[in-house]
Amino acid sequence: MTQQKRTVFYLSDRTGITAETLGHSLLTQFDGIEWETVNVPFLDDIENAQAVLAQINRAAECDGYRPLVFSTLLKPEILEVIKQANCRLFDFFETFIRSIEEELHQPFVRMAGRSHGLQHHLSYFKRIAAINYVLAHDDGVNPKNFAEADIILIGVSRSGKTPTCLYLGLQYGIAAANYPLTEEDMSSQQLPKVLENVRGKLFGLTLSAAQLHFIRQERRPNSQYASLAQCQREIQWQESLFHLFNIPFLDTTRISIEEISATILNRCGLKRQLYG
Amino acid sequence: MTQQKRTVFYLSDRTGITAETLGHSLLTQFDGIEWETVNVPFLDDIENAQAVLAQINRAAECDGYRPLVFSTLLKPEILEVIKQANCRLFDFFETFIRSIEEELHQPFVRMAGRSHGLQHHLSYFKRIAAINYVLAHDDGVNPKNFAEADIILIGVSRSGKTPTCLYLGLQYGIAAANYPLTEEDMSSQQLPKVLENVRGKLFGLTLSAAQLHFIRQERRPNSQYASLAQCQREIQWQESLFHLFNIPFLDTTRISIEEISATILNRCGLKRQLYG
Repeated sequence: MTQQKRTVFYLSDRTGITAETLGHSLLTQFDGIEWETVNVPFLDDIENAQAVLAQINRAAECDGYRPLVFSTLLKPEILEVIKQANCRLFDFFETFIRSIEEELHQPFVRMAGRSHGLQHHLSYFKRIAAINYVLAHDDGVNPKNFAEADIILIGVSRSGKTPTCLYLGLQYGIAAANYPLTEEDMSSQQLPKVLENVRGKLFGLTLSAAQLHFIRQERRPNSQYASLAQCQREIQWQESLFHLFNIPFLDTTRISIEEISATILNRCGLKRQLYG
Repeated sequence: MTQQKRTVFYLSDRTGITAETLGHSLLTQFDGIEWETVNVPFLDDIENAQAVLAQINRAAECDGYRPLVFSTLLKPEILEVIKQANCRLFDFFETFIRSIEEELHQPFVRMAGRSHGLQHHLSYFKRIAAINYVLAHDDGVNPKNFAEADIILIGVSRSGKTPTCLYLGLQYGIAAANYPLTEEDMSSQQLPKVLENVRGKLFGLTLSAAQLHFIRQERRPNSQYASLAQCQREIQWQESLFHLFNIPFLDTTRISIEEISATILNRCGLKRQLYG
């Protein structure tokens, strides 16, 4: 198979998140293509649309293939301009909205910015409160407020607790705390005292010792902390602790922050709202 | 218009982020409907699919309307089960993937978890590094490393700097720092000394004095800090400072974290990768 070089455009009235999410999820199903990505958010006047039309046509000529264009544009006059371009257009709204109108027996409002805009003040404040909670309860800080957490992630240093908590707060409005397991906790096979009353909220993160070693090497090269033997010991200790106290846990070695977060929400049955 | 109560299902082999993002952006185009949302991520065996089928049918009976089902399921045998349900099914892959195959002259790989999974280790480490940079450079901390920032947000207390920086790091892999403008900086109409050598990276966040007052009231009710007069003074000072030093800025009063972030990336021409 020859390596094709192709250009993909994401066109949107607003942030472009929907268009990019759609296109990305489709295009990752094809291998061996080198994608040049052009994001055009906030495309809301004819003049800019004409510039994009020219840009699409140039890419078609330069690549020798017409570009793929994913659009969530809502203004018909902007779309009309883009439709003249030498491209394969995937119009997300046009494709689905009529069937949904039919199903709901009402016309759609055709208003941009509804999906990723600021719709509900209450929900917005809940989200900001969750982010603040995460920041104020990172790495074992303020354990006296752990009772207010929706979830408390535990694991050894560099097991991915902080990025996961931030993601849970920012994308799902979840008040996520995290607590690092130390060598003393683990070698004694005791749960830290501050976690005793919140056992039902605990969720463990683990990973392969080799991966932990690799990550810690980045941080403190050739330290005792980063040594493979130390990583093996800590991982073995913490997994045995998770089993002993019946704490649900997840191996994050080969999965992304999104997958870790979705798994935690699913397994803990947490109510959530997807933002963004 | 009578208020309909409807159920929507988001079905996915993996995280469900694509299904929910796409469905949400379509449904926000319809007003006056009360949605009951059911998320079913990691749906990958027949037994669970049959349970979901039953759940869809129960919702149809209970609502008096067939549910809307948004799917990014890739396994044909799972989809076959769902197709027997009393629902209106929107299959995001089936709808677009054949046209893309045609356009690219190759079949799709039909592998779940490609969109929000861990595909590239290098890109993953870049993302984690960006999140760590944001956490280590929040609220004016470590200004000696500001030269390494992709962008530095400035603004008065509670202008939205921290959530925006976190979002930029987590979703786009951008190393975003932020620096709070203090009363001294503003009343003297001087740029803080630590920002002088990084003027090209500065971006201001502003908002209406009324909104700032409202947000600060939540934090320290009836304080001088939260008073409307103080908020008016600070906003006036900072906007005049932005003009004086020709710093691009954005009014965030009515826009979401997603819109603030997309606008900043767009106006500053920052290269990014959308994660999640």
